[in-house]
Amino acid sequence: MTPDDIQAFYARRGELDAEAYIELDFTFECAGDPREAAAHLCSEQSTAQWRRVGVDEDFRPRFAAKVLELDATPRPSGFSIRIEHAPKGDVYACRATIAHPHGNFGPKIPNLISAVLGEGVFFSPSIPLIRLEDIRFPAGYLAAFQGPQFGIAGLREKLHAFGRPIFFGVIKPNIGLPPEPFAELAYQAWLGGLDIAKDDEMLADVDWCPLADRAALLGAAREKAERETGVPKMYLANITDEVDRLIELHDLAVARGANTLLVNALPVGLSGVRMLRKHARVPLIAHFPFIAAFARLPQYGVHSRVFTRLQRLAGFDVVIMPGFGARMMMPESEVLDCVAACLEPMGSIKPALPVPGGSDSAATLEGVYRKLGTVDFGFVPGRGVFGHPMGPRGGAASLRQAWDAIAAGVPVADAAREQAELKAALAAFGGK
Amino acid sequence: MTPDDIQAFYARRGELDAEAYIELDFTFECAGDPREAAAHLCSEQSTAQWRRVGVDEDFRPRFAAKVLELDATPRPSGFSIRIEHAPKGDVYACRATIAHPHGNFGPKIPNLISAVLGEGVFFSPSIPLIRLEDIRFPAGYLAAFQGPQFGIAGLREKLHAFGRPIFFGVIKPNIGLPPEPFAELAYQAWLGGLDIAKDDEMLADVDWCPLADRAALLGAAREKAERETGVPKMYLANITDEVDRLIELHDLAVARGANTLLVNALPVGLSGVRMLRKHARVPLIAHFPFIAAFARLPQYGVHSRVFTRLQRLAGFDVVIMPGFGARMMMPESEVLDCVAACLEPMGSIKPALPVPGGSDSAATLEGVYRKLGTVDFGFVPGRGVFGHPMGPRGGAASLRQAWDAIAAGVPVADAAREQAELKAALAAFGGK
Repeated sequence: MTPDDIQAFYARRGELDAEAYIELDFTFECAGDPREAAAHLCSEQSTAQWRRVGVDEDFRPRFAAKVLELDATPRPSGFSIRIEHAPKGDVYACRATIAHPHGNFGPKIPNLISAVLGEGVFFSPSIPLIRLEDIRFPAGYLAAFQGPQFGIAGLREKLHAFGRPIFFGVIKPNIGLPPEPFAELAYQAWLGGLDIAKDDEMLADVDWCPLADRAALLGAAREKAERETGVPKMYLANITDEVDRLIELHDLAVARGANTLLVNALPVGLSGVRMLRKHARVPLIAHFPFIAAFARLPQYGVHSRVFTRLQRLAGFDVVIMPGFGARMMMPESEVLDCVAACLEPMGSIKPALPVPGGSDSAATLEGVYRKLGTVDFGFVPGRGVFGHPMGPRGGAASLRQAWDAIAAGVPVADAAREQAELKAALAAFGGK
Repeated sequence: MTPDDIQAFYARRGELDAEAYIELDFTFECAGDPREAAAHLCSEQSTAQWRRVGVDEDFRPRFAAKVLELDATPRPSGFSIRIEHAPKGDVYACRATIAHPHGNFGPKIPNLISAVLGEGVFFSPSIPLIRLEDIRFPAGYLAAFQGPQFGIAGLREKLHAFGRPIFFGVIKPNIGLPPEPFAELAYQAWLGGLDIAKDDEMLADVDWCPLADRAALLGAAREKAERETGVPKMYLANITDEVDRLIELHDLAVARGANTLLVNALPVGLSGVRMLRKHARVPLIAHFPFIAAFARLPQYGVHSRVFTRLQRLAGFDVVIMPGFGARMMMPESEVLDCVAACLEPMGSIKPALPVPGGSDSAATLEGVYRKLGTVDFGFVPGRGVFGHPMGPRGGAASLRQAWDAIAAGVPVADAAREQAELKAALAAFGGK
């Protein structure tokens, strides 16, 4: 690029119509001039050849992505990860904010992903390592999406659960149980105080545990538990399947007795979720398979909060995400970023309930709550409820006992002296 | 896990019904005992809690994934990439082959992705770095998928193009041109010898270049070019959009005159593609946005050939993929692996045409052909056709002239002395 060509991919915020652009924060490592690398990054993701041969025209003013901010720091040690065919030259670690004109593609999830995570971003000259750190949408773009139908407030209304976390539990054994004992486990957990008994993300519509039978039995068990406890409960049925079955499985599961539905967001595709959202009559809950494949490394891929935002945009009422604790291998700040992406203002889009999960139990509840600093979260043990030594009723009770102690300002360990379920939970799961 | 629990996640191939399992090759780095790490990897991706509390049962024989092969090498220098909360202990670099029982989820793309790239794989204890290197399906599983409708043979029939590569060109400027001049560029390229004039992966159905108008004008231009040249041509229209518009856009584009369709595979979701395949009347062509986000690093994510196989399985007749050359930052062996994944036997699934792309032109054709060692590939320049100094007709002609020289055993540089278009292409693009 000539100096003039490079300059044409730079702008000041005030020069642009903010409503016409999505803002993208990238970090990247490049070889050679960072200013030219960032210009190429804009060109490649928007108008890569901005005039016809022999024609005096320039598509950049309207169609080019533009660098708003750029910081570059030399990395004398070179690229932080070795890449085949990495470009040669002095290496810089950079942070750039880019304004991308969304009129190039419109309010459509597949085209948005193609623009901000496509060939132009990952194959830009001199940039072998790049990570999309964040994304911000103007209000007019957001207004084209429905977002969550119920959101946190709607979910709380349905559960009559206010001023406290929502208690989920992943029914275990997750794979292998037929519907009858599976329903019995959920029933026990609801009696113990669980709000939402949940299919594992790997348990979908299978011949050894068909969704139709499961939804019917769990639905009946749910209604029985509601009658006996006097409070609403939810069965979260996993309808993850081919996109052309989502509507059918929604209707089937809801008709039989499921009153909230799980979809593995990325494996199904967020566009399939957006389609389902138009039809859905119950809350939609996201699980996170596949996201870690591009979200774990600090130097490359996508920050998790980008897909948290996109899941909220696509219409999920609840986003289950990797949470705290060594097993999830997430920096604490990144978990908090994802939680914030669910809760913070997003134009016309309702908040979604964040559910940071990972090897949780009554022993981890207080730590999670203190880190989040809000009651607007879901808590989703698996073994912590269904592997509890006293069974799922005891496991669920241990969560509620722990929360009651926290809410009352009583140390959880003190409360455990009086309550057998909590005591057993701390003994079984408190070692970490 | 106890030694017995670990052993229950190991098996010999001969002990298992091969038709009941998908085989997965992983590389990973772990801390501590590799044998236990591989057992956890199986448990987490299948039956993570294989019995109820207080019940004498074991779901592992039928439902557990099992280690078939494991090699481990100490890495005294520790993990190759620094990860937050990485586990402690001696580090090993491992390669494992795992048999995963597909009856756990069935022949469904979202559930398959959830199983082999889900929480169980990326959050397995002691394994912070892992990459799915390859996947193999039994014939019975493959038989549940349609795969490509036309495949390579069908595409050649439609184009009357035998014994040579298929010549694609990405119409450029890719973003910003209205339909009329866009159609004129394609028309010129077809006259010059292009087989398939292609929308850019970023150009979909937008108000400044609506698909309906574009398909109509390009369709008419295509028919005119076919009459004038006497050979069939294709207009490849990009219908990438929300999944609930794919069928409608297929029908609209085909009715207006597009005779092959582009879908950005991962942004739309492979399940959406499988749905479209059931309806499609024309070849479906995949582009690769987003795949690099999890496929570039040798230590983490997914080897590109896994998604090449899945794109073929989902029903794409053609798979455009990152090819040779420094810009694409792919090891040459990985490009060849992806090409092989399109061409090699795959049960009842037809071969797909591989199109390894990246800054191509008449100057790179011979190198690509020699590396591939087959004529069964597509060649997809952008600027090499539409940025040619003599315009797209000259650009397309330069490709055919280069191929004619290669096929005749004449050095391309020699042929260029007689042919102005080829000479101009080598002068403009031959510097790299």
